[in-house]
Amino acid sequence: TQIALEKGYEARRGFDARFRSLLHTVRDAVVFVSVPDGRIEDLSNTAADVLGGTADSLRGTSFVQAFQDRQRAEFVEALTSLSGKETGGEMSVALKRSGQKVRIEPTLFRAAGARLVLCRLVPLGDGTGTAMAAP
Amino acid sequence: TQIALEKGYEARRGFDARFRSLLHTVRDAVVFVSVPDGRIEDLSNTAADVLGGTADSLRGTSFVQAFQDRQRAEFVEALTSLSGKETGGEMSVALKRSGQKVRIEPTLFRAAGARLVLCRLVPLGDGTGTAMAAP
Repeated sequence: TQIALEKGYEARRGFDARFRSLLHTVRDAVVFVSVPDGRIEDLSNTAADVLGGTADSLRGTSFVQAFQDRQRAEFVEALTSLSGKETGGEMSVALKRSGQKVRIEPTLFRAAGARLVLCRLVPLGDGTGTAMAAP
Repeated sequence: TQIALEKGYEARRGFDARFRSLLHTVRDAVVFVSVPDGRIEDLSNTAADVLGGTADSLRGTSFVQAFQDRQRAEFVEALTSLSGKETGGEMSVALKRSGQKVRIEPTLFRAAGARLVLCRLVPLGDGTGTAMAAP
């Protein structure tokens, strides 16, 4: 059983290492948001650029507070209900700090009993549809 | 100890779920390559498009076989030694099926005793520097 425990620990570290490596490498702006509290569990550096901070400063903060005119409860509810759509559920929001419009593409999933929404952020209005760094 | 085992299992599943969710969401072309055998452990759908197959068909195959004029051993060696560079290690290769040039940006890391190289693929010559779907 000790061996099984150690194997479990090793495997967990293995997936954690893959996850961290991937999250640090991608240029996509992606944010993991916990449900129902709406806090940012983790995010890519590109997402931190879009939101106007660093990944370290934004982790643990409320995702909704980055956006204009949104209440936490209805925001989290909107994210989870959009995730239920077969394809293409998305919503547009405006960044509080700059007013820039951002499209959010949410995907809800379960991870070891927790519910999380993985949000891809796409800044709008630059015509390319690709994520870009904040001005 | 049974509880510890179950917690370990849950946590592992949790990281696995985050990893899969992230890998399926990102538009970056990323490939996890195991060292030293050079096999594709996993990849994003965009990477599968670049390499000219599906993620399911490419998983477990040798990464080098997608490229022209490359031998497995020297290719894997090049990936790992480039990863050792502080920043910006990269190499250019040509796809066997189309001749298109692709830049590979490798990052070596360890995961539970295994060595893996996470490769970001950037098709060259379209002028935008972004990953694109195969023709």
